[in-house]
Amino acid sequence: MSHLSGTKIAIIATDFFEEPELLVPRDRLREAGAEVRVYSASGEAIQAVQGDTDKSQKVEVDGSLADLDVTAVDAVVVPGGTVNADHLRLEEEAQRIVREADGAGKPIAVICHGPWLLVNAGLAKGRRLTSWPSLEQDLRNAGAEWVDEEVVVDGNLITSRKPDDLPAFVSAIEEKLTPAHV
Amino acid sequence: MSHLSGTKIAIIATDFFEEPELLVPRDRLREAGAEVRVYSASGEAIQAVQGDTDKSQKVEVDGSLADLDVTAVDAVVVPGGTVNADHLRLEEEAQRIVREADGAGKPIAVICHGPWLLVNAGLAKGRRLTSWPSLEQDLRNAGAEWVDEEVVVDGNLITSRKPDDLPAFVSAIEEKLTPAHV
Repeated sequence: MSHLSGTKIAIIATDFFEEPELLVPRDRLREAGAEVRVYSASGEAIQAVQGDTDKSQKVEVDGSLADLDVTAVDAVVVPGGTVNADHLRLEEEAQRIVREADGAGKPIAVICHGPWLLVNAGLAKGRRLTSWPSLEQDLRNAGAEWVDEEVVVDGNLITSRKPDDLPAFVSAIEEKLTPAHV
Repeated sequence: MSHLSGTKIAIIATDFFEEPELLVPRDRLREAGAEVRVYSASGEAIQAVQGDTDKSQKVEVDGSLADLDVTAVDAVVVPGGTVNADHLRLEEEAQRIVREADGAGKPIAVICHGPWLLVNAGLAKGRRLTSWPSLEQDLRNAGAEWVDEEVVVDGNLITSRKPDDLPAFVSAIEEKLTPAHV
């Protein structure tokens, strides 16, 4: 498959991201022909975890959040992992990236604990979305309409709840980026 | 010191609590004469972490959250740790415990990521409090007045930001429970 040839996708994360929530979108979107780059807070390789706290591999990245020019990408993907998401929400460069992507109407795909970043970026209000269950109240309090579905697409915003939802999550990203559907 | 003799304190937590945020209050309040018991979600021993994800010791507990009779204790302490707090906020028994303590006007002392439980228990609205910085927006969105201070006492609610605040946090608990100040 190469139906995403010419499409550029940025994944943003920091240490203790949930391993499949970064690797599955990265690898499946590359298989579909997209150019996928990973950006970390520091620009250094980042530590994956399985579940909440079990450290697995370190993943190489292509640059720091500050290096990411949102005008040069077609979509932004935000993995979860409790600790990753807890840190990422406070990174001003991460907030800038999703705000710029949203302002340009570009797809933003966020899974699991990732949507905390939408709260801190001011992007949750009035949006229909999902997340890991512990974020439900935070997202409702931020003004979102929270629903319990494997993938929710509201305009440019794509959200899912957990690793089990990854097939639906990645398919929704692919569909959103396939020219016939843009 | 035994100025807290006859005082009963419950600490509630689950796996991946931040080690000093449970052990320091437990041990200092015991030294002050209080009877301090620890309750976990399952009633089984719970895993401590240092920092965000480094597993350290397992800590024995005295019962499960369901075993905790709030009418029989004088105060409730809620440690942080990102993953502990992320899980604890969804435990209905944990929500019940802090609601019953609040309804009875008993001191509730919550540190670091612990205040997420106040959001899910519906106890943040209109309260002056602090927390780990990543919770600031969640607590404001839940209707709290969030401030950046080492310890904040608002009626029966005592909150602190991080392990460095533990001396002030424990002192505030002791002061609240010392008869002359009740």
